[in-house]
Amino acid sequence: MSSRKIIRGGLVVTASDEIHADVLIEDGRIAALAASGTPAAEAWTAETVIDATGKYVIPGGVDVHTHMELPFGGTFASDTFETGTRAAAWGGTTTIVDFAVQSVGHTLREGLDAWHAKAEGNCAIDYGFHMIVSDVNQETLKEMDLLVEEGVTSFKQFMAYPGVFYSDDGQILRAMQRSAENGGLIMMHAENGIAIDVLVEQALARGETDPRYHGEVRKALLEAEATHRAIKLAQVAGAPLYVVHVSAAEAVAELARARDEGLNVFGETCPQYLFLSTDNLAEPDFEGAKYVCSTPLRPKEHQAKLWQGLRTNDLQVVSTDHCPFCFVGQKELGRGDFSKIPNGLPGVENRMDLLHQAVVDGHISRRRWIEIACATPARMFGMYPKKGTIAPGADADVVIYDPHAEQTVSAETHHMNVDYSAYEGRRLTGRVETVLSRGEPVITEREYTGRAGHGVYTPRSTCQYLN
Amino acid sequence: MSSRKIIRGGLVVTASDEIHADVLIEDGRIAALAASGTPAAEAWTAETVIDATGKYVIPGGVDVHTHMELPFGGTFASDTFETGTRAAAWGGTTTIVDFAVQSVGHTLREGLDAWHAKAEGNCAIDYGFHMIVSDVNQETLKEMDLLVEEGVTSFKQFMAYPGVFYSDDGQILRAMQRSAENGGLIMMHAENGIAIDVLVEQALARGETDPRYHGEVRKALLEAEATHRAIKLAQVAGAPLYVVHVSAAEAVAELARARDEGLNVFGETCPQYLFLSTDNLAEPDFEGAKYVCSTPLRPKEHQAKLWQGLRTNDLQVVSTDHCPFCFVGQKELGRGDFSKIPNGLPGVENRMDLLHQAVVDGHISRRRWIEIACATPARMFGMYPKKGTIAPGADADVVIYDPHAEQTVSAETHHMNVDYSAYEGRRLTGRVETVLSRGEPVITEREYTGRAGHGVYTPRSTCQYLN
Amino acid sequence: MSSRKIIRGGLVVTASDEIHADVLIEDGRIAALAASGTPAAEAWTAETVIDATGKYVIPGGVDVHTHMELPFGGTFASDTFETGTRAAAWGGTTTIVDFAVQSVGHTLREGLDAWHAKAEGNCAIDYGFHMIVSDVNQETLKEMDLLVEEGVTSFKQFMAYPGVFYSDDGQILRAMQRSAENGGLIMMHAENGIAIDVLVEQALARGETDPRYHGEVRKALLEAEATHRAIKLAQVAGAPLYVVHVSAAEAVAELARARDEGLNVFGETCPQYLFLSTDNLAEPDFEGAKYVCSTPLRPKEHQAKLWQGLRTNDLQVVSTDHCPFCFVGQKELGRGDFSKIPNGLPGVENRMDLLHQAVVDGHISRRRWIEIACATPARMFGMYPKKGTIAPGADADVVIYDPHAEQTVSAETHHMNVDYSAYEGRRLTGRVETVLSRGEPVITEREYTGRAGHGVYTPRSTCQYLN
Amino acid sequence: MSSRKIIRGGLVVTASDEIHADVLIEDGRIAALAASGTPAAEAWTAETVIDATGKYVIPGGVDVHTHMELPFGGTFASDTFETGTRAAAWGGTTTIVDFAVQSVGHTLREGLDAWHAKAEGNCAIDYGFHMIVSDVNQETLKEMDLLVEEGVTSFKQFMAYPGVFYSDDGQILRAMQRSAENGGLIMMHAENGIAIDVLVEQALARGETDPRYHGEVRKALLEAEATHRAIKLAQVAGAPLYVVHVSAAEAVAELARARDEGLNVFGETCPQYLFLSTDNLAEPDFEGAKYVCSTPLRPKEHQAKLWQGLRTNDLQVVSTDHCPFCFVGQKELGRGDFSKIPNGLPGVENRMDLLHQAVVDGHISRRRWIEIACATPARMFGMYPKKGTIAPGADADVVIYDPHAEQTVSAETHHMNVDYSAYEGRRLTGRVETVLSRGEPVITEREYTGRAGHGVYTPRSTCQYLN
Repeated sequence: MSSRKIIRGGLVVTASDEIHADVLIEDGRIAALAASGTPAAEAWTAETVIDATGKYVIPGGVDVHTHMELPFGGTFASDTFETGTRAAAWGGTTTIVDFAVQSVGHTLREGLDAWHAKAEGNCAIDYGFHMIVSDVNQETLKEMDLLVEEGVTSFKQFMAYPGVFYSDDGQILRAMQRSAENGGLIMMHAENGIAIDVLVEQALARGETDPRYHGEVRKALLEAEATHRAIKLAQVAGAPLYVVHVSAAEAVAELARARDEGLNVFGETCPQYLFLSTDNLAEPDFEGAKYVCSTPLRPKEHQAKLWQGLRTNDLQVVSTDHCPFCFVGQKELGRGDFSKIPNGLPGVENRMDLLHQAVVDGHISRRRWIEIACATPARMFGMYPKKGTIAPGADADVVIYDPHAEQTVSAETHHMNVDYSAYEGRRLTGRVETVLSRGEPVITEREYTGRAGHGVYTPRSTCQYLN
Repeated sequence: MSSRKIIRGGLVVTASDEIHADVLIEDGRIAALAASGTPAAEAWTAETVIDATGKYVIPGGVDVHTHMELPFGGTFASDTFETGTRAAAWGGTTTIVDFAVQSVGHTLREGLDAWHAKAEGNCAIDYGFHMIVSDVNQETLKEMDLLVEEGVTSFKQFMAYPGVFYSDDGQILRAMQRSAENGGLIMMHAENGIAIDVLVEQALARGETDPRYHGEVRKALLEAEATHRAIKLAQVAGAPLYVVHVSAAEAVAELARARDEGLNVFGETCPQYLFLSTDNLAEPDFEGAKYVCSTPLRPKEHQAKLWQGLRTNDLQVVSTDHCPFCFVGQKELGRGDFSKIPNGLPGVENRMDLLHQAVVDGHISRRRWIEIACATPARMFGMYPKKGTIAPGADADVVIYDPHAEQTVSAETHHMNVDYSAYEGRRLTGRVETVLSRGEPVITEREYTGRAGHGVYTPRSTCQYLN
Repeated sequence: MSSRKIIRGGLVVTASDEIHADVLIEDGRIAALAASGTPAAEAWTAETVIDATGKYVIPGGVDVHTHMELPFGGTFASDTFETGTRAAAWGGTTTIVDFAVQSVGHTLREGLDAWHAKAEGNCAIDYGFHMIVSDVNQETLKEMDLLVEEGVTSFKQFMAYPGVFYSDDGQILRAMQRSAENGGLIMMHAENGIAIDVLVEQALARGETDPRYHGEVRKALLEAEATHRAIKLAQVAGAPLYVVHVSAAEAVAELARARDEGLNVFGETCPQYLFLSTDNLAEPDFEGAKYVCSTPLRPKEHQAKLWQGLRTNDLQVVSTDHCPFCFVGQKELGRGDFSKIPNGLPGVENRMDLLHQAVVDGHISRRRWIEIACATPARMFGMYPKKGTIAPGADADVVIYDPHAEQTVSAETHHMNVDYSAYEGRRLTGRVETVLSRGEPVITEREYTGRAGHGVYTPRSTCQYLN
Repeated sequence: MSSRKIIRGGLVVTASDEIHADVLIEDGRIAALAASGTPAAEAWTAETVIDATGKYVIPGGVDVHTHMELPFGGTFASDTFETGTRAAAWGGTTTIVDFAVQSVGHTLREGLDAWHAKAEGNCAIDYGFHMIVSDVNQETLKEMDLLVEEGVTSFKQFMAYPGVFYSDDGQILRAMQRSAENGGLIMMHAENGIAIDVLVEQALARGETDPRYHGEVRKALLEAEATHRAIKLAQVAGAPLYVVHVSAAEAVAELARARDEGLNVFGETCPQYLFLSTDNLAEPDFEGAKYVCSTPLRPKEHQAKLWQGLRTNDLQVVSTDHCPFCFVGQKELGRGDFSKIPNGLPGVENRMDLLHQAVVDGHISRRRWIEIACATPARMFGMYPKKGTIAPGADADVVIYDPHAEQTVSAETHHMNVDYSAYEGRRLTGRVETVLSRGEPVITEREYTGRAGHGVYTPRSTCQYLN
């Protein structure tokens, strides 16, 4: 016999609609929506009825850029799949897509298997994988085809970090050509790392070792250059392109230019670029290290162009690039040499709230909030309409969101496994109240009611967002 | 007691979703959607059950640019509200927004009243009105406020037709300033009519009187210029702008440039610009007159840029600018002088089908079809979600669309009151089968079951599409 | 027997070269240049030898935008041809092109004759005329052909000042078409005066009457719009275009865009836009009135784009738009109503010095100084190489310029007939020492040695600057 | 006692002027110019008087891109400095700047010394050297400073040819930074060679071995990409940039964009891109090999954009990239594998004539011809006004050019040491008649009167063309 739940009286907000509707859940999926108060809605009964009066009923967040347990710079990102996905749920996110890593000299399969092992049985919410391709060769290219077939349909390459993740333009072109055939989507870390490494070496030689120099050497122009180059290589290959963590106004301009030409080029930005800046990198007493990530934070004036890009759809997705390192013991590895600071920020728990604040502040509309945080990420990476919307047939990944609650972000109260918050002390309007994952309560009126292992691996189809 | 209908088994296609769902209609509105085959769906009963298996279930089309019975050039558009709205229904359109006309020296109210009188009791489907403002003055500006309050929330101005509809840049600026305050949306006919009239005079003086010269003198550059000018005036006024019947690639480029700067600037194109060209204008034996409209048809190479604009959302809406004149007796007024040919094409019946053909041909996706033809027009002109989508609470304006049926367009079989078709002989895949307007069957399995007077006036809120 | 002069030992600076050469003048023309110290140079003898050691030997300035004795707003520009050309000579300018004015309802010929009468016998230096066309009609168009033949080869139109100088887009198009045939060059005052007049009326109605509001209502966007429109009309007409007194960064961008497309579009700016700003317009006690001109002064940040345009050749000419009105009795007409302040600034005496200061400050190179102030203006308006360069065969219009002298600009010491200086108190490096006009000394070691009537009318050929 | 020559009665054409003047030469330099027929001119006497009546008197051509005796692909360019400079003189070129090559693992000095040894005593005309930097390291960077001081002020880097000339982005950035300090000018071969080599490999694997595939794999987009990247690296370094042999319309667009932003970015194109196309590469029987060079010839439609770039000064220089390989025995090395065809075309003898033909055809003006072929190259590479103009003090490198003579280009009559002409059979109007190098006749009325060893090494100052 089927399990049924009804969410009554809320305002259902999706990427396209804002409707007063009751939501009927059967067996973990959205079975039906009915206009609140109609006979159709009133006729429903269920063992569980959730009252959402005065609340928003929104799709669970889809964060397509996380790095749980990532090995980086001799240490590991401090959130495991268990702690990280639990924190995600607290923040209203019900699906993550994490990055499995191919090491140079190893196969994609080895990397993917290792990441499956880390995640399986540990996650509070559903998860999928992209594949970081560090070593493009004939074998790798063939493996890409296989991975696409089994639901790993996106591949990340790096134009930075030579010797670690770096692909040269020939390797990028080959992978793009392959993805043009097999339907995979290339995700690009677009920074000219070869040039940046020269600037890093020169800065250190001048004794410029503080965290803020991380922001100075990783120049906006070199992000824009790499973005342009990736676009042109994709154009030559006839492949679509998704640029991750866009932070520079000049890079947004390159995406806009390409999109004006009709190219299937997409851009993601992250809350840290929308809400933080080089001012944070310049905080004294090595506090700036908390904000070291790549692409780096930019001067404040870049933020307006990112918001504009989100409004004009030159940027389509906001994800977190969640990759936490504790200040004590991890970020501190880079005292005296900014290049040794592990790159990454915690954020998987904060994204939905920060973007709701952007609604409150007038940067984006309510529907656009859901579009950039739920619907488009799901579509872009082949999980729609299972994830990212509230519609009959979709997974019942649903968040009851209180738009009026006030909260103050703090490491003392957050659930990520990291000893600081990048948004410490920030006051926000809006808060997650209840979270369902495939109909099961993970957060219930701000109590954690989920469990490690509830979340399952989600194979994905190819990109559903192309023009 | 409520009337209930169920549409079972179709693929519900909206601007955002494609889902296999049953649709429950209560009292003329969408009461609920349920995933087909679920207990929730199976539990429903109704006096009427429409089987949509193998069909699309789509929102009724919203055509925001029609001119029924328009007086123009000494004659009248040949479709009345009765014949025109019936034809619209045959073509899967369930809402039109027509243009009430202020004559110079008269009030807006007089014009609006006159148009209400023409429409009331005669329409097969729902309708609203924009207001053509031909005479901007202090009184007119005050009247604009009143009209916005009563649901006429958009105002058309002309940069062409001096002495008839023309507004100078000062009048445009004043109206835009007013709309920035009262929430109205200025719709612009963007052609530099002052310059064009010089070219018309010169062409006629050279003996260039055939219909094709209509296309030559109304230059793409002069459409683009006016588009740019309207954008800049709107920017000065701090107002949004909607440019009607964009036909030139250069005009699309101006819209794209403005949108890249983050301006709330929108563009509409029409099927005739997407499917016809100056080749038609050049048809011999005065046949070209059938294709005379303003902005004019452009050389074929412009079409690719229009499709691209629709894909990249630099163009947001496809409407028809339906303004039919019979070849015999009306178009013929311009024999020997192209400037006397009444401007306008029939199309209200063809739009949904032509755009479905564009889906078949790969120009746009299925969801984008619904977005540009139903959802965005409704949003742009303040009728969403009542019109333009299939969602709980919406009006039950629903089309059962057979995506596999074949048809051949012809004046012999169409329902518009005009003696030719602009698309004569064109073979199309896809056809409207059944049309509901607020739950009432207007077309039932390709029989007309509607009635004049079913359609009611629909007051509109202000634009819901702004960033 | 021929009169001979030699200028020995200076650095001859032209638009293309910087050479140490002696200059031989015979009968008022440059007869020869010889490398200083060579036998060829040493062999020369002459009755007059001017020692230019340590000085620049440059072509006399060519100021192609002056308004001597212009009737405007019920008064007259305060410099007559006599006082104005004398001041020009003091400032190192040896040729002006002034604007004859057609009044509405009168012929071009009448206007031109009137201006000839004002100038003839009164000028210290050579002069030519452009024609302001206020009333385009069939007669006017024919007259344009005649004027081109007799050396008035450029025609100014206004997109501002409706009722006075204003031409509508049809009139502009017709004049441009004519100039495309007869070789004339249309000079455009590019401001959307129709829209601006609305803003003026609204500002005054709000009680915003101070001079600074002049700058606020004549918006940069409305200059850019008109610039774009003029460009498109010229493109339709197949004619080149010269935009006068470009002041807004956005207008420079329009010119750059057009030039990138290969159009023959040219732009002039003036010293006031390079050196002054809205800060001056906001000076208290009605002092701002001194800086009222149209296009208006812009906020300081526009200056960088003007300098850039001069460097990248998106702007080609710097002229003065010299049109002085005394503060007392003239500018004061606009107390309490900025729209009644006569538009114009004195500057004919300051241009060469201010631009030399730009060389000192590093904005432009020495050769570019001569190019934008002498050579290109002469070429643009058909006087090259007679004017604008130092080359065998050219008129001996030569300035001995001391690049090291210091001066302070002041109304107390200037020679223009106006009671204030727009650059009062500004310290400049560089000063005119001696000025020859066709070999005759007008200024001799900072004494005026010229005479009214020396200067003669200079008919001009058509534009020599086209690609 | 000084040797004197007079050139009488010609039209002296320079980059800035066209004047009827006699030219006096003393001791190998231009001593003076005098207006023809003036007493000043008539007073001159000389042992040699050249009658130039009806002819142009122009500066000798300056070809800043030649590769005499270049080792490439296992063979050597077929012109020695002796044969190549003699051919240059026949074509009206009196200065070349050739490329000394640093081999990987060797010093700049070694390369430069080797090239000096090849040239010294062998040249018919003056010559200078750029330095190809194949191996950027700390030593090389220091050597760059030294070379700048001794007159080798420009350094070429390659973004193509990995393993041979290729520099990665870090090496490019370092060299640019150095040049920003020492005044050197980086010349860039801008093609993404890493990506191209992938396409080459794939083409050969598909059996696409004919010469025309050379054009297909070296894609215009990949030239434009590299051009953009070089510009951004130069912007980061704060250095100017000179892009060699621009062939793609898209690359011109990148240069134009950068120049609109005010960057000191310059572009050179070559006659082969202006006059030849992929049609030539597709000639049957391996004839296409004659036209294999890199960047490759492009489809014909690119030519219009190159001409436009030359008119709008987005391209500043036309040089030849003269690098001849005989068809028999050299080009043939690539039968069956286009990647083995030695890259390069003969052209040093044809440049001045082909560009004069462009004047005849209306692509450029007469003065622009001299500017792009003589004056700007000389300025760009620090040889002005010694080379590139006719002005007092300049070297007497003078060409008497007959603008009316007709000629047919052919390998049978040309003087380059190569068995084919890229322009075989082309009829041209205009021909070199007499050539002086520092006053000495090298070509006298179409007889060779020069000698190997007359030409001397010309050290150069730094770039004189910066804004």
